[in-house]
Order: sequence, then C-alpha cells, then structure tokens
Amino acid sequence: MTRPRILSGMRPTGDLHIGHLVGALENWAALQDGYECFYMVADWHAVMSEFKDTKSLRRHSISNVADWIACGVDPKRSTLFIQSAIPEHVELWAAFSMVTPVSWLERCPTYKEQIHELSHKDLSSVAFLGYPALQTADIALYKGELVPVGKDQEPHLEVAREIIRRFNGVFGNIFPEPRVKLTETPKLNGTDNRKMSKSYGNAIELSAKPEQIRSMMKTMVTDPKRVRRSDPGTPEECNVYSWYQAFAKDLLTTAADECRGAKIGCIDCKMRLADRMIPRLAPIGERRAELMADDAKAVRAVLAEGEEKARAVAQRTMREVKEAVFPV
Amino acid sequence: MTRPRILSGMRPTGDLHIGHLVGALENWAALQDGYECFYMVADWHAVMSEFKDTKSLRRHSISNVADWIACGVDPKRSTLFIQSAIPEHVELWAAFSMVTPVSWLERCPTYKEQIHELSHKDLSSVAFLGYPALQTADIALYKGELVPVGKDQEPHLEVAREIIRRFNGVFGNIFPEPRVKLTETPKLNGTDNRKMSKSYGNAIELSAKPEQIRSMMKTMVTDPKRVRRSDPGTPEECNVYSWYQAFAKDLLTTAADECRGAKIGCIDCKMRLADRMIPRLAPIGERRAELMADDAKAVRAVLAEGEEKARAVAQRTMREVKEAVFPV
Repeated sequence: MTRPRILSGMRPTGDLHIGHLVGALENWAALQDGYECFYMVADWHAVMSEFKDTKSLRRHSISNVADWIACGVDPKRSTLFIQSAIPEHVELWAAFSMVTPVSWLERCPTYKEQIHELSHKDLSSVAFLGYPALQTADIALYKGELVPVGKDQEPHLEVAREIIRRFNGVFGNIFPEPRVKLTETPKLNGTDNRKMSKSYGNAIELSAKPEQIRSMMKTMVTDPKRVRRSDPGTPEECNVYSWYQAFAKDLLTTAADECRGAKIGCIDCKMRLADRMIPRLAPIGERRAELMADDAKAVRAVLAEGEEKARAVAQRTMREVKEAVFPV
Repeated sequence: MTRPRILSGMRPTGDLHIGHLVGALENWAALQDGYECFYMVADWHAVMSEFKDTKSLRRHSISNVADWIACGVDPKRSTLFIQSAIPEHVELWAAFSMVTPVSWLERCPTYKEQIHELSHKDLSSVAFLGYPALQTADIALYKGELVPVGKDQEPHLEVAREIIRRFNGVFGNIFPEPRVKLTETPKLNGTDNRKMSKSYGNAIELSAKPEQIRSMMKTMVTDPKRVRRSDPGTPEECNVYSWYQAFAKDLLTTAADECRGAKIGCIDCKMRLADRMIPRLAPIGERRAELMADDAKAVRAVLAEGEEKARAVAQRTMREVKEAVFPV
C-alpha cells in the first residue's frame, strides 16, 4: 500500500526560528510516519515578494534544509528539494494559468490581505497575482492528495481545487483534487507578543546560544495586568505561558497554578522554560553545524538525491500534461 | 561577424493560407540573408485562446512547419522549433512575471482590444493577461535584438522593452533591449474583402488546388462601384488589385490601366491573376507533400535538430538568469 502524498514548502527568506520549529517542522517530522512527504524550498515563491533583494535566497535555501533535517525531517523517508531546480513547477504553473480566470485570483481573500499586510513590499506583479496557481502546480506536480494547512490557508486550497477541477474538466482526469489536512499547529508569538519575525527582533533563532535565549526571554512580555510580584496572574493572557504549551507541556498545570497563586515570579517562570528550551535546541544546533560543514556538503548531497526523485515524478506528470494539452 | 538575432513565431491554430505567405513567410525567408533567425511554433500562446479545444494544435504545429519550409524558410540557415518543447520559455516567463506589474499588462492596448475582438473566445485567464511577458521571454531567451513587427504590434514590443529594462535593472545586464524592425508586410484581405481567415471561408489555403483557386477567385469582391463591364473601375478600391501587388507586381500598371479604362472585365482580370498564383503555389504544395510524407518524417527531423540548437541557447540563458536571481 502506498502512503498518500503530501507536499509542503517554505519560502527561504531568512534563518529559521522557534516559530518555524513549533509551527511547521515538528509537524513535518510527524507526518513522515503516515505519508509520503515532499518538502520543498519555495524559492520562486520567495522571489515574488523579495525580487528587489534576492542575494541571500540561495544561502537560506541551503541552511533552511539543514534546519529541517536537524529538526527531524528525514531525507531517507521524505523528498527534499529546491523548487527552481525542477523547471516542471513553472511549466505546470503555465498550464494552470491558461485555465485560471483573473477574477478567481483577485477574489482570493489572501491576495488583498497580503497586499495590505505587506504594504512595504512591492506585490504588484502578475506573478504574485498568479501565486495560487503556482501553489496548485507545486501540489499537483506530485499528485499530492493532502495538503497540511491551517484554517487561514484554506481559501488558497479552495482555489487550488477549483483550478484542478477546471483543468481536469478541460483536459481529462489527470490530477486528484487535493484535500485539506487541517493542521492547527501552535502559533508562537514573538517575545514582544507580536507576530514572531526576525525583522521585528522578537524571534529566537534555532541557532541561538543559551545566553541569547535567556537574555531574550528575560525581556519577554507577560500578562500585562500582573504588575507586581505579589499580583496573581492570568496564564491565558501570558505569552510565556503559550510558549510552555510548545516546550514544557508537562509543566503547564504547575505553571498555571503558580502564576494564578502568585507563587512564582515571572523571571523564574521564564528561566524554568528556558531550561527546557535550551536542551531542546542544542542538538538541533549541533546537527545543523554538522550538516553545514564543508560548504554544506551533506545538505547538497541530500538535495541532489531529492531533486533526482522529485524530477522523475515531475517529468512523468508533465509528460502526461503535455500529451493532454497537445495531443498527437 | 555574427548576424543579429531575430525571433518570430506563429500560433499553430490552423492550416496556413496565402495571407500567411504574403504577410509573414516571404518576409521570414528574406530575413535569413541578414539575420540569424529563430522561428517558433508558438503553441503555448495558442493554448491561451484555444484551451477549450487543443486537439489539432499538435497536428498544425507539424504541418505549419512544413509550410514554412515549403515557402522558403531554410532549416539549414534558421532554427525551427516548437515552443513547448523548450521548457525554458515558461521558466523565463515566470522570472519576467516577477517584475511585471499587473498594471503594465492591463494598460497594454492590445489586451483590451483582443478581449473585445475575440469576444467569442474565453480570454479571461491570467495567462492571457501575462501574454506580453511570455512574448518577451520568447525573444529574450535567444537574446533577440530585433523583432520584425508591424505597426500594430509595436505596443507589445514597448512592454517587452519595459520588462527587460526592469529585469536588467534588478538583476544585472543580462538581456539586450530588443528593437523593432518595422516590417510592413502586405495584408491580404479575404475574397470577401474582410480579414482573411479560414473560419470566414474567405481564405485560399496554401494547399488549394488550381480549380479551387479559380472558383474562389471568381466570387471575389471587386470595386463595388464598377457595376457593369463597361464602367471604369478604381483599382485602389479593388481587393483583386491589392492581390496583384502580392502576386503579380509586374502587371500592376497594366491592370490599373485596363481597369480604369474598362478595357478588361473583372473575371478576366481575376483569372489572369490566378494564372500567376497557381504556379506560385504549386511548388509549395509539392514541397509540403514531400515534407509531410511518411508521417512528416522530414519535418520531425528538422524540428529535432532545431530543438537541439534552440535548447542549447535557452539553457545557457536560463543558467545565467538563475545565477542572477538566486546568486550563490
């Protein structure tokens, strides 16, 4: 019995932080037990928003893959590759673009949202408008059946399903309609309780040293209503408590209880968490260093193998697509 | 000294007629003396407007190339290939899409014009919106310096120049800015004096037999004011006279003079022209038949060789593009 295929990807726009670990990579590692997983560095997707400065995309493509592996993605079980190394992604994008009305894309709720949210980026390109069709191609190229997405990503997948339905309707049943595998991974906010992002300086990177972790955590925003040490706190309103969910589940009850009873100070509470995070991140950093040694020789070997596997599948699919679009 | 490169293409949407011969192919043949020519079957472009029925695209791709060669395009001097066989076309399209604002494309005068003109076709796709960026990629992939276009195509090339300028500005000077090689080829109207098109039934196909040519020409619309044989005619207002320009230049003065003086009847005038057209088309038909013999073996051989040549150039260009977009 073949396992259902899953495709997921990440834009190589920077070094990875604990938000990526908790929000994606732990899930990627777990999915490998039940699915045949394709994990992709979405570098063309990154160019869409970063075209004015792409000079670190290649470097991050390599180091991100090192982090994936260090966090438990297993190249023996999963296929890891860089999108731009497989030209069939954009070929299938082109084919899907032929049957995708502009109006479907304009209507896509995430489109206007992102243009608004990322107003400091130039997102006016036709490529960015066509973004969902490339995402659809990414999935369909490997005949992905399931896509692990959070609730906020569901509209994107709805467009993907519409595009595939229309393509199948015109050219014959080539692709399965991918289904949502709803995956509510914890979203970690940054130390300042805003969205975690390297550019905000509120993210703990996977490569952070113990002293960096401690000093960043000391400044973490907690329950704003707990002003004095003797005030009782409300764990549900504390960002530190939400990090406990990710890194110290077994201490959740204790921490909540101590916070509500003002039995522990915030700094102690944070440092107890840090003592859990440091040993969680240490082996990741070590493994990453090994993988990146010698000009990332090990990562390059994984990618070469992954690209070969991905390419074989991708070429087979595109052959089928071309035979359908340009029948003899 | 290398000759400047030219790229031109044709959508494989049907069998070719004398409008293609006079309006494009005679020019393509002539250009070979001064330029290194790449002639492309633009099959992805055809899918944009024909996606609901692509079943004859492949057949016409082959038979059109047979016609090109039969009309004087020389596979020894020029590179002939089918666009979809070279994935780098859509790869470069993707790269150009990243720097092409939607507004540039919407503004493109030919966009709205075509949506209006071809209102019976579904042109709502994002691919069709991005059409000029694919045209730009077609040219730039071979570092084409000159593009032979008529006045009506100039806006498309202006967008191409803008896209290339922007891409070069962001990623370094990779591409020459293509220049217009203004080429006013005669536009032949159909036998009913509307635009010549197979779908109007007013086109003489390159493969037409002498009796078909004569019978179609007998019904040709002439100067509408010349009602009786004895009425003097106005050659400038006669569609047949415009065909003389294409097929019997040496008889232009005679024909004009006889028409103005009512010295010749329209049928005789048409049949004299037919006597010139028939021997012009006969060897084209013969050559085409040779090329198409044995399941178009000769055409396939030409395309295999052309694709190899085109692919080598295309791969070199895309390597350069990827090194610029994803620098190491």
